[in-house]
Amino acid sequence: MRYSDHAKPVITLTAGPVNAYPEVLQALGRTVLYDYDPAFQLFYEQVVLKAKKALRLSNMPLILHGEPVLGLEAAAASLITPDDVVLNLASGVYGKGFGYWAKRYSPHLLEIEVPYNEAIDPQSVADMLKKHPEITIVSVCHHDTPSGTINPINEIGALVSAHGGYLIVDAVSSFAGMDTHPDDCKADIYVTGPGKCLGAPPALTVMGVSDRAWDKMKSNKLAPRASMLSIVDWENAWSKDQPFPFTPSVAEVNGLDAALDLYLTEGPEAVWARHALTAKAMRAGVRAMGLSVWAATDDIASPTTTSVRTPSGVDEKKLRQSARERYGVVLSSGRGETLGKLTRIGHMGPTAQPIYAIVALTALGGALNAAGGNYRIGKGVEAALAVIDADA
Amino acid sequence: MRYSDHAKPVITLTAGPVNAYPEVLQALGRTVLYDYDPAFQLFYEQVVLKAKKALRLSNMPLILHGEPVLGLEAAAASLITPDDVVLNLASGVYGKGFGYWAKRYSPHLLEIEVPYNEAIDPQSVADMLKKHPEITIVSVCHHDTPSGTINPINEIGALVSAHGGYLIVDAVSSFAGMDTHPDDCKADIYVTGPGKCLGAPPALTVMGVSDRAWDKMKSNKLAPRASMLSIVDWENAWSKDQPFPFTPSVAEVNGLDAALDLYLTEGPEAVWARHALTAKAMRAGVRAMGLSVWAATDDIASPTTTSVRTPSGVDEKKLRQSARERYGVVLSSGRGETLGKLTRIGHMGPTAQPIYAIVALTALGGALNAAGGNYRIGKGVEAALAVIDADA
Amino acid sequence: MRYSDHAKPVITLTAGPVNAYPEVLQALGRTVLYDYDPAFQLFYEQVVLKAKKALRLSNMPLILHGEPVLGLEAAAASLITPDDVVLNLASGVYGKGFGYWAKRYSPHLLEIEVPYNEAIDPQSVADMLKKHPEITIVSVCHHDTPSGTINPINEIGALVSAHGGYLIVDAVSSFAGMDTHPDDCKADIYVTGPGKCLGAPPALTVMGVSDRAWDKMKSNKLAPRASMLSIVDWENAWSKDQPFPFTPSVAEVNGLDAALDLYLTEGPEAVWARHALTAKAMRAGVRAMGLSVWAATDDIASPTTTSVRTPSGVDEKKLRQSARERYGVVLSSGRGETLGKLTRIGHMGPTAQPIYAIVALTALGGALNAAGGNYRIGKGVEAALAVIDADA
Amino acid sequence: MRYSDHAKPVITLTAGPVNAYPEVLQALGRTVLYDYDPAFQLFYEQVVLKAKKALRLSNMPLILHGEPVLGLEAAAASLITPDDVVLNLASGVYGKGFGYWAKRYSPHLLEIEVPYNEAIDPQSVADMLKKHPEITIVSVCHHDTPSGTINPINEIGALVSAHGGYLIVDAVSSFAGMDTHPDDCKADIYVTGPGKCLGAPPALTVMGVSDRAWDKMKSNKLAPRASMLSIVDWENAWSKDQPFPFTPSVAEVNGLDAALDLYLTEGPEAVWARHALTAKAMRAGVRAMGLSVWAATDDIASPTTTSVRTPSGVDEKKLRQSARERYGVVLSSGRGETLGKLTRIGHMGPTAQPIYAIVALTALGGALNAAGGNYRIGKGVEAALAVIDADA
Repeated sequence: MRYSDHAKPVITLTAGPVNAYPEVLQALGRTVLYDYDPAFQLFYEQVVLKAKKALRLSNMPLILHGEPVLGLEAAAASLITPDDVVLNLASGVYGKGFGYWAKRYSPHLLEIEVPYNEAIDPQSVADMLKKHPEITIVSVCHHDTPSGTINPINEIGALVSAHGGYLIVDAVSSFAGMDTHPDDCKADIYVTGPGKCLGAPPALTVMGVSDRAWDKMKSNKLAPRASMLSIVDWENAWSKDQPFPFTPSVAEVNGLDAALDLYLTEGPEAVWARHALTAKAMRAGVRAMGLSVWAATDDIASPTTTSVRTPSGVDEKKLRQSARERYGVVLSSGRGETLGKLTRIGHMGPTAQPIYAIVALTALGGALNAAGGNYRIGKGVEAALAVIDADA
Repeated sequence: MRYSDHAKPVITLTAGPVNAYPEVLQALGRTVLYDYDPAFQLFYEQVVLKAKKALRLSNMPLILHGEPVLGLEAAAASLITPDDVVLNLASGVYGKGFGYWAKRYSPHLLEIEVPYNEAIDPQSVADMLKKHPEITIVSVCHHDTPSGTINPINEIGALVSAHGGYLIVDAVSSFAGMDTHPDDCKADIYVTGPGKCLGAPPALTVMGVSDRAWDKMKSNKLAPRASMLSIVDWENAWSKDQPFPFTPSVAEVNGLDAALDLYLTEGPEAVWARHALTAKAMRAGVRAMGLSVWAATDDIASPTTTSVRTPSGVDEKKLRQSARERYGVVLSSGRGETLGKLTRIGHMGPTAQPIYAIVALTALGGALNAAGGNYRIGKGVEAALAVIDADA
Repeated sequence: MRYSDHAKPVITLTAGPVNAYPEVLQALGRTVLYDYDPAFQLFYEQVVLKAKKALRLSNMPLILHGEPVLGLEAAAASLITPDDVVLNLASGVYGKGFGYWAKRYSPHLLEIEVPYNEAIDPQSVADMLKKHPEITIVSVCHHDTPSGTINPINEIGALVSAHGGYLIVDAVSSFAGMDTHPDDCKADIYVTGPGKCLGAPPALTVMGVSDRAWDKMKSNKLAPRASMLSIVDWENAWSKDQPFPFTPSVAEVNGLDAALDLYLTEGPEAVWARHALTAKAMRAGVRAMGLSVWAATDDIASPTTTSVRTPSGVDEKKLRQSARERYGVVLSSGRGETLGKLTRIGHMGPTAQPIYAIVALTALGGALNAAGGNYRIGKGVEAALAVIDADA
Repeated sequence: MRYSDHAKPVITLTAGPVNAYPEVLQALGRTVLYDYDPAFQLFYEQVVLKAKKALRLSNMPLILHGEPVLGLEAAAASLITPDDVVLNLASGVYGKGFGYWAKRYSPHLLEIEVPYNEAIDPQSVADMLKKHPEITIVSVCHHDTPSGTINPINEIGALVSAHGGYLIVDAVSSFAGMDTHPDDCKADIYVTGPGKCLGAPPALTVMGVSDRAWDKMKSNKLAPRASMLSIVDWENAWSKDQPFPFTPSVAEVNGLDAALDLYLTEGPEAVWARHALTAKAMRAGVRAMGLSVWAATDDIASPTTTSVRTPSGVDEKKLRQSARERYGVVLSSGRGETLGKLTRIGHMGPTAQPIYAIVALTALGGALNAAGGNYRIGKGVEAALAVIDADA
């Protein structure tokens, strides 16, 4: 049998969007309340408070009503002024991409770029900050999803803070899948969303903003206002007594509420642990099977996505098509620079469960062997299982 | 008994967000597919084709992944260049508001403004176009929701077309509730969304764009690109073979799909008829009860929202609070200029059913009388019923 | 416009099945767990504990996996032996009906029957018990739904208890809509279900069983075992450590769980109050309109269903068809003996909200007047509203 | 990490209840219509027509509102009279169990019993029918789920038909998972339900009844009437113009509707193929791993459940607990006679996908090895994959 492109796949193991938790899917179907109904306004405040708890923030976070690219673009547009000197840290396609937005708002852009299977070395940041005391803003992508690699944002954040700069962190695909919070990395703007490790659909931004970032944005006359790109307009929208600048995405907020409940109820530490174990089992299996993990070292390999280097001579697109056709398993490609060079297996939210490493290994190995490879799938499965069992 | 602010109301009769159809609520809970899964890409194309059918368009419409203020702002940002001369038609708060966006992109703004319980007279548009042959773009809000009034966009569109101008139409709260389509009014950009008469949650823009508007936007170097505000980036995203500029709001697209199915299956003419009948019954009841309809004349009163003028001396906010506390019925306030002057009853999607006019009349009349009024609720109900029965 | 028979109605105001609460509808869609999964067994025990709390029982209640006719039939089959002398109290179609089941299991059947718009007089029960000391079992329907009338089961129960008899109570459509619990009426078997005032779909029985009824049933060799009709088999099935006699209706248990949560969270007294107020407003409106309430006196009129006597010369079936066609409002007919003589408006669960009395009065009055009646709908609405407002 | 008993498992691979298809879960949440609403009555008729199509029946099938044990018990109670001579064919716990019901209604019970890992030999039936021309009814369980074995019901049915007897078939866990239909085996009563291969929750019986079985049941004065156990009462309930004997399980019918749509849309042959392939891959994996399939031969191994013989010395209950704790995977035990002797992996509805054979093999092998076993999990996975790939 072959799975048709027209039919839904059996198991989706992508790096986002991921399938949502069943409880989140049900919550999306809650009654749509009028945004100015007092019950909705109270509910909205409560959801923001749950997000605050999950983010372990001291002030109120923000919901923006578009997927996190909105949050990232809005952060650049609101925080960066033409006088700012921005240091952008690029260890992958997403980190690199933020530089283009930064340049739109200030001509002064510096960059540290490393190969896309490596991570930013904090020492290089320290050196750059020393060399360029004029740097006012540093931007970094925590988990550069197209690479499946993690940057040491807590170390970087400490340096930026000591320097007196503002830090913008893209934590879209790391938050809720590992131990990361805005205050831990001293982020001034910390952007995430429900569509990755929180296991909800993609359509919102959840953002932490430091008090001094609020001040800077509010004093920035060029910061978007009366605009979809505005952050400033939403400052007080969390309050049950304050208006919304425009209509919030009611159903998505319902979904986020359920996702936050699940996260807080299961316990963040337990959630991170299953993300980490799934990724660790995956990496063990990949290697035992005869394949390579894309990340240069295990300590920078993401617990929420494993990128597997495409063996030379293999058409990566056909590889994923084959995994879907033969086994109904959907995997992610790379993006931009990494497209064609690696296959990504997401471990996010509901699929951050070790047993799915077995599924992924089998589907990946099966597809490779069907294309003429000779990978030891059994060895891979056994190695992954050994990792899982060692933790039991 | 009193309904608590903390509890969900019994019946929501607002001018949007409205509660969604049950089928739409269920569709929101469908499996979240990966956006690059071939099944999702095919599905997305099919949803756009359904939107095309509903909009009765000859070319492909567009979905933008934010509520329609995104669509309107993006339209201004993409179509209006500093060389354009924009004529903004303002018969209400939303129409007036578009002018502020227009001015952001061109300094050349002309305006026709009428009292906010009246509609734009096509003759005044004809005069203005004659007097200002340099006008290149005309913008109009079809149903100015904060007033509950309708502008004659088909007549206006014919004039603009003859003049050779581009027409931007805000049809957010009229489309799918009455007989209006982009081609009927020769709109170059026609903005609507699922959160009003289609009976889905608010989180998407659905947009019709004429071929020449595509050309103008694509040749506009200042039009947003690589931005949440971009229209141009999404030109080909409908195609199952083309990438998405960023992640689409999967769950909302699932909801839109169900809403379009309901609309096309029930039959647009039947859907419009129940919106119209509900509004007609409502107006008859309002008057029979001793109240006034806000709209200057019935021919400009919206079939999707009835605005009731607040009797002098009545605190409109308390009036709505009372209707909610006593009967569990939620109504809408005015906005901006109309705030405090009128109460709005939405007839949109699932609540565009004549029996809800009875509910609204009772709740409104009861709240007024509880505050010392002496409105003839029984007469109002009977008058509304007479309208319903006359149509049976 | 006319509502087609093929299309879903707008508002269902029936005496059950009623539409379910949205939260219950969502709960029905929870993941279906394997019945022997420990998480399901624990969950099942917790649901039974919630039912215990709602029923205010001192021992564990029972879930049977069929709508309450299963519970009633099973009660007759399990409790009544050929040696028992049963006194069946019949004040309506359902009460009368139980006698047929009773007779199936014992030839000794006595009956008190009153006109179907009256209630059983406890004095008549006292007299009968005195006259027939051989009576061992008394059966009574609390709310005889086809009549919309309530029997004084607490008074009756006290008499039966003093007599030493067993009491079987059908509380299917009263429990959770008014102040009634098994211990209040000293019921030995108390049968209800989620499909009426709990606002869930119909497919389960919830049953309270006294310790001595358990003893009697277990010592009854003729009581069904290894049968769908068995009660005895399910005695310990509530326990997370005990097996199920056959597969429980997993999805319905999920729905029941949500319904019990809603009931306990809103607060039983608050739930009863809105049932009572809706019915009281309804009766006031019915009379003001020029119609009659079926129940002989208000103190026996059910707070969960109002039966309106059909005016002479009116075809009751056509009346309801007309209400549905014209207004999209569905009402219930009578059944058996009361069929054609009355129309029933349910006030159960989500529709036990006073504003629905207005809807019902309008739909009923409109349909009557469309058929040539001359009922004062406006007066009816105002009278109902006066009752609602008096309670605000 | 360990999965708690209190938390939902990750993947349920049981022999029913199985998790439902997402579309079915959503359908359960549809608006609950009044059972006498014309829209519901029409819908019910349409669902029965879909069941007719799925069953490939020439007359109308029946829905009974309890899980299939209701259907089986009702069949015994309705069809078997004290004059009947019943031949019960027992190749497993369920087949054997039907004999106890049969004996309740007729003292004349003959039986052919074979070891519970074998199937009934049609020749033995032919011999028995020849030897006992007085046999009037034959009963057989198609897929004896506690064994995971299939009986040759088409061959048996041909013999019974030639003999002139009535045939009762339990096809609860085979129908919709393989090529079986009432007419193919000339069944007079054919009992199935939505909770197994149709991928819906368990709470209904779907039953095919031959014309002559209807005649026999209707002329049977002892057949249940006015009872939950009645079949006769429901004869015409499918018709939109006929009443229901009692309230149907509205939500479950909604779910069945969706399940039938999925089955008919995917195509029965395609559905059977993925059940068969999953089971075939599973068996190959089981053997390659060093384990044994319970079924004596592959031709009688069920395509919808694979029973794996428990290695000697292994505590089967702890084995399943371990699979759940370590991997979050739930498997089924045996029942009665087979309890403790085998573990069952269901391939039913949404889990009848070959990739789940990999999951099951890994979970089973992992749990065995964790308990000291030395099974070759890698070999098992590779063997299963080879079967899957051979079919691609």
